[in-house]
Amino acid sequence: MSKDQLAGFIGHWLPKLEDEMRAVLRYPAHSYDEQAVAVHYGMMQYHMGWLDAHLQPDKLPTGKRLRPILCLLACMEVGGEPANALPAAAAIELLHNFSLIHDDVEDGDEVRRHRPTVWKLWGVPQAINAGDGLFTLAFAAMQRLQRRGVSAQTTLAALELFTHTCVELTEGQHLDMRFEQRVTVQTPEYMRMIEGKTAALIGASVAIGALIGGATDAQDQALQRFGQAMGLAFQIQDDILGIWGDPAVTGKAAGNDILRRKKSLPLLYALNHETVGAQMQALWQTDLGSEQLPTVLQLLADANARSYTQEQFDHHHQVGIAALHDALGARAESSALLALANSLLHRES
Amino acid sequence: MSKDQLAGFIGHWLPKLEDEMRAVLRYPAHSYDEQAVAVHYGMMQYHMGWLDAHLQPDKLPTGKRLRPILCLLACMEVGGEPANALPAAAAIELLHNFSLIHDDVEDGDEVRRHRPTVWKLWGVPQAINAGDGLFTLAFAAMQRLQRRGVSAQTTLAALELFTHTCVELTEGQHLDMRFEQRVTVQTPEYMRMIEGKTAALIGASVAIGALIGGATDAQDQALQRFGQAMGLAFQIQDDILGIWGDPAVTGKAAGNDILRRKKSLPLLYALNHETVGAQMQALWQTDLGSEQLPTVLQLLADANARSYTQEQFDHHHQVGIAALHDALGARAESSALLALANSLLHRES
Repeated sequence: MSKDQLAGFIGHWLPKLEDEMRAVLRYPAHSYDEQAVAVHYGMMQYHMGWLDAHLQPDKLPTGKRLRPILCLLACMEVGGEPANALPAAAAIELLHNFSLIHDDVEDGDEVRRHRPTVWKLWGVPQAINAGDGLFTLAFAAMQRLQRRGVSAQTTLAALELFTHTCVELTEGQHLDMRFEQRVTVQTPEYMRMIEGKTAALIGASVAIGALIGGATDAQDQALQRFGQAMGLAFQIQDDILGIWGDPAVTGKAAGNDILRRKKSLPLLYALNHETVGAQMQALWQTDLGSEQLPTVLQLLADANARSYTQEQFDHHHQVGIAALHDALGARAESSALLALANSLLHRES
Repeated sequence: MSKDQLAGFIGHWLPKLEDEMRAVLRYPAHSYDEQAVAVHYGMMQYHMGWLDAHLQPDKLPTGKRLRPILCLLACMEVGGEPANALPAAAAIELLHNFSLIHDDVEDGDEVRRHRPTVWKLWGVPQAINAGDGLFTLAFAAMQRLQRRGVSAQTTLAALELFTHTCVELTEGQHLDMRFEQRVTVQTPEYMRMIEGKTAALIGASVAIGALIGGATDAQDQALQRFGQAMGLAFQIQDDILGIWGDPAVTGKAAGNDILRRKKSLPLLYALNHETVGAQMQALWQTDLGSEQLPTVLQLLADANARSYTQEQFDHHHQVGIAALHDALGARAESSALLALANSLLHRES
């Protein structure tokens, strides 16, 4: 699939996806007055980018909708009708957004997509509850598969995958928060964390789409491996850009992850390095400012942290491509999934 | 069913219910090291009463497990095998406990069942995430119905009822938190709130058990109405006891709800009363202490707030009994569901 064809696919399905999600966020039709709980749903719709801070309709940045697009593409790639997978694609995007609402509370982040976060506007208690509401509606979205004629058996199989992914998401988030409070974290621990926090949902997006599209078990498992590996590569690329990315392209300050003392893969590699590790750790205990940036960048260079991280990226990228071949055979090379993965993984922001 | 037979039923099924819940809280079997996420599951198991604050096994107060018992009884009452409903009973109790973990964070409550709350021990961010984990596992528990031979179609119908109840729970919690910040709340608004926060899950417990037991649609809907009405009666009884209950029986200070300025039904009735309302509201703005208790109690008496509340209790109690007759016919009078409801609704604590 060419870049243009991919853009055409996305342009065709994105509005239908938004419609499906909006239908769920009106769920359920109450017999009593909707107005009483309007703010509850308003907070969710604000987070989704459909309403402004005064809960007035608006067209605001909504995020890339990457995961649902992967889900719809996977359904198509195995010969299915993408429309059948729309409820699952909506469920996946709603789940992702639920996790962002709670992450923002847990991390104390005040801004997301250039707007105040839900807790910043409505307070922590209501934001926790709005997240719970969105989590619930993600499950409600998945149950709408039956309306598209998907069998009860397949719907339950999709729900099982989805639920297992939620388990992994909360495990990943647990580890992420624990790591922030530790001085050192080993790179395998970090990989375990991003497997849960980032890769699991991307893997599930592909696997659930393929399941609905009628994939064989072997195909479905291979496509899940493809998604997970691409998710890991995607996160590792993010880690590289967080240190060496061009500020003009990434929109973030140079060495942003260093100044935030983020426990990303290159930094953890250097912190645990046998020769530069001690120096890195000493710097880590100080109030790292931009005047220390050249020193940290030199230590990263001494440790070959960038090559190490690039190798990890290449490894997971290759694993992903191999899994795609397992699933689709010769068609892998011309598949839309590969086109989308490539467009994401050669990005510079 | 006699009181003794009911106690026998509960004694038989409670250990099996605990086993089912424990099996889910070990879910899923990971390929990687369990130790990394042991604290994540430890927090949930602490909340369930299975572990102490050091995450060592212990036998601690676990709560009444009222909802899952209702679920198992309802299954039996319509001629089903209660064992088939165990996964749903477990799911309902896990869902109830998830909501308590988040409620404790949202309300800032430091103690539950005589122990520090999860957020008090592990901090707000981890407690939110542990609640999310338990929420997820409640859905996982429900999906285990298929292992008991329940059909995919019935499993999905149970999941739909369950999900709808989660929607109502979050709506009820939204209203509860909003009401705390308002000066006055009308009694119909209050009823709407406890419909979501308390009655919906009790109604669903009965309806889901009956669904699995093979109830007809009409039976199932009538049993849901029975559960909802009993849930409302139960909450209203709680409101009466919170003001006029015997401290020796309730274990709470006399006039506890008054001193906490809780917006319970008798107090809202008096606050909105045409003759005493203004005086009540004036008192409400002050630092209510025990020296004002006699005045408030007198105002409640002048407004006939206790009779009003008792009438509401009687109304919902009657609605519940009538719904039980709709569902079970002449058998309603000797049914275990009635025996359990009666034992709860004639309580004094």
